[in-house]
Amino acid sequence: MITPVQTLSDDALQFLKQTLGDELVTTNFSEREYHARDQSFHHAHMPAAVVFPENAQHVSAILKYANEHLIPITAWGAGTSIEGNPIPVAGGIVMDFLRMDKILRVYADDFQVDVQPGIKYKDMNAKLASDGLFFAPDPGANASIGGMIANNAAGTRTPGYGATRDNVFRLQVVLANGEIIHTGTRSKKTSSGYDLVHLFIGSEGTLGIVTEATLKLHPIPEHFSAAVASFETVAGATRAVSAVVGAGLKPVALEFVDVATVRELNTTNEFHLRENPTLLIEFHSATPHALEHELALAQELCNDNGCIFFEVGVGRVERDRLWKMRHSTYEVLVRNHPGISFLICDVAAPVSKYPELVAACEREINALNLPGASIVGHAADGNAHPLVPYLPDDKASHARALQALGNMVRVALSLGGTATGEHGVGLGKIPFMREEHGASLDVMRAIKRTLDPNGILNPGKMF
Amino acid sequence: MITPVQTLSDDALQFLKQTLGDELVTTNFSEREYHARDQSFHHAHMPAAVVFPENAQHVSAILKYANEHLIPITAWGAGTSIEGNPIPVAGGIVMDFLRMDKILRVYADDFQVDVQPGIKYKDMNAKLASDGLFFAPDPGANASIGGMIANNAAGTRTPGYGATRDNVFRLQVVLANGEIIHTGTRSKKTSSGYDLVHLFIGSEGTLGIVTEATLKLHPIPEHFSAAVASFETVAGATRAVSAVVGAGLKPVALEFVDVATVRELNTTNEFHLRENPTLLIEFHSATPHALEHELALAQELCNDNGCIFFEVGVGRVERDRLWKMRHSTYEVLVRNHPGISFLICDVAAPVSKYPELVAACEREINALNLPGASIVGHAADGNAHPLVPYLPDDKASHARALQALGNMVRVALSLGGTATGEHGVGLGKIPFMREEHGASLDVMRAIKRTLDPNGILNPGKMF
Repeated sequence: MITPVQTLSDDALQFLKQTLGDELVTTNFSEREYHARDQSFHHAHMPAAVVFPENAQHVSAILKYANEHLIPITAWGAGTSIEGNPIPVAGGIVMDFLRMDKILRVYADDFQVDVQPGIKYKDMNAKLASDGLFFAPDPGANASIGGMIANNAAGTRTPGYGATRDNVFRLQVVLANGEIIHTGTRSKKTSSGYDLVHLFIGSEGTLGIVTEATLKLHPIPEHFSAAVASFETVAGATRAVSAVVGAGLKPVALEFVDVATVRELNTTNEFHLRENPTLLIEFHSATPHALEHELALAQELCNDNGCIFFEVGVGRVERDRLWKMRHSTYEVLVRNHPGISFLICDVAAPVSKYPELVAACEREINALNLPGASIVGHAADGNAHPLVPYLPDDKASHARALQALGNMVRVALSLGGTATGEHGVGLGKIPFMREEHGASLDVMRAIKRTLDPNGILNPGKMF
Repeated sequence: MITPVQTLSDDALQFLKQTLGDELVTTNFSEREYHARDQSFHHAHMPAAVVFPENAQHVSAILKYANEHLIPITAWGAGTSIEGNPIPVAGGIVMDFLRMDKILRVYADDFQVDVQPGIKYKDMNAKLASDGLFFAPDPGANASIGGMIANNAAGTRTPGYGATRDNVFRLQVVLANGEIIHTGTRSKKTSSGYDLVHLFIGSEGTLGIVTEATLKLHPIPEHFSAAVASFETVAGATRAVSAVVGAGLKPVALEFVDVATVRELNTTNEFHLRENPTLLIEFHSATPHALEHELALAQELCNDNGCIFFEVGVGRVERDRLWKMRHSTYEVLVRNHPGISFLICDVAAPVSKYPELVAACEREINALNLPGASIVGHAADGNAHPLVPYLPDDKASHARALQALGNMVRVALSLGGTATGEHGVGLGKIPFMREEHGASLDVMRAIKRTLDPNGILNPGKMF
């Protein structure tokens, strides 16, 4: 790894201030501290300086200089990631995209938008609503688009609309040497050359820094329905997932919520769920009649798999209530259990293996004998998020939680799955990369060396 | 480029025969001639030898030897590509995957299948039908899966199901040095490491050779409908495309057929179409009621855009008739115009620019003043296939056709589109790569040098 840089030289600071202007460069303690951590449990590391570029030329000039002077560069969006992805473990410069947060062009007829990487996806969607359009990947937190591209973020709507990877047409990227490239096309289809767009997506800022993106949008659907299905058993709930997808139904979202999580949610007195393994289901449709038929078929398939209660709510309000509930799980959990911290695990397996994956996760987290252990997950994608409790001031407890997390990852891999469904590798999943990728990890390393020979881009991540 | 190899040394031939067995290695003239061309207009080149590997170990041993002895290697599937992609322009060894054509495992619950690259997609789908599943990308010709992966093939069903790129989970790839790697996961979602799966898809055998693939399948839909919509103008037809997609309707297929093509089809007396710009539309649905409502909305939107006739046929038979008609266009054209050859052009642009793209293509092909000039296209994807007529024995005529093709590509690029929507770069689109990709072409070259430093893999293509 590149030598860590805890303090910038006067020359380097002068260069940055001359290039960006004084007010866009800071070594202020609180700014450095703010950019030392994300929302994960990983240790904070202070950068030497924080800069706020305003355009691709700024980014290019800084990278060219950093590459020549071997200064680590870590891009920063909203700091909402949860695997330590943007923590500047080698110090150097954090590049915060706060000021590059514009919608540049809306191509309404093509359902596309050009944006800068610093824009937050919820803010962007609020603006796009006037055109009747939205960006579908939905990580829960108000992440930046640049961060979502870096981590290939996904979430509750991914069964219907794909992950970030499936929703990007074009990128402007600044390479480690400062060169600005454009890759991809606004055409929906292309077979022209190597797929660099997908190479940069999910590379966590280690191959280049995205300064502009053309995103795929979708028309805001006119007709929503949401359903809550309660099951006798976890196995029944997960079999129902397979049946619904297998029937050719296309739920936009299909979430699994375990009994422990249901009980946590019910403590709020805001939600009144049956205390059973539960699926939250959402359909979108172009016509209300299509929606009715889809829901009826989904209910039938759930009933075939031991559903004991199926409640339907049609319309935007019901839909919004459901997802407000789902997205509040972590917050409710933390509020209900003062003195407990949680590792948020992210594993995924083929959908047919979801019952096995969830069962293994239940065993691991229950063995910790701490309150708050629970599992939610994007079931239609085979993705599970066990919340792994530990006592923050007890090293042995933290070690046990990490051990449980590792065991769950190894189960996911043994089932043909992956160490991370949507949170990225960051710091937390590095130990599992060789086991997951074998010799292809060396191909990744070779590409890293080719595009960033000095290793200045987000050092200490991915490998 | 690597030095061409027109004849293999006795040592090389002996190595191949020892490794594969005598019957899997040939220098027979007719075999070499058969593997000297694809279905394009590009010049044939004979390989020095043709081999028929039976497993990844065979491929690995051959590549290791070829890499050490600087022998060009070109992978071969069905020879159905139309940009010269598998023509062995530097001679050497053609590796025909004829004997690696097995379905290895069906994961019915996960809608996935492991296959070898030599299997043809129609043959594969015929076998998968007993599980109620199919592989959706549909290039028309009975291409091999390996070739479809190499070219990121797409076709009529791509609006509904995506291109090959969107339907591959996992690859086994043999690198230029003979190393066998596995990349990707059976999990529907992953954010683990660089996306090598998408890097290899569309790389046309220049970065590695695929020896196994895990494909995404879909349940065969129970309910089909097909519609034929005739319009007063091309502009009306293409505006209707935008309206249908913009309403949130999800046609599986949405094809544009120009008047010239309609007239060609009508000469068969098998089809009786109105002689107007025409859209062919297909919907799949989980319920017949959903289908009815989708069709009614589609018709309304077509009528709003100058549709003068909208004929609906529901069911598999009507659907099959429609696509038999669409896929016969090239054959009918060639039969109707003896003495004329055709360049099959492949350009794509954002859907909002489709009217401009098609208008420019019409001007170019009509200016040639030869019979058979016509345009079909995957309209919902902004993809157009002008059929560019020329006199095969007249060099000036061929040059004019090539000039027209170049002009159409430049229009596509100027509209924010791409030089190839689905046929790949091969030989035909190399001249446009710098214009389309700018500095990112150098990144592609750098990756090529990293993964294939001796340039043995499909030399003379892509760059």
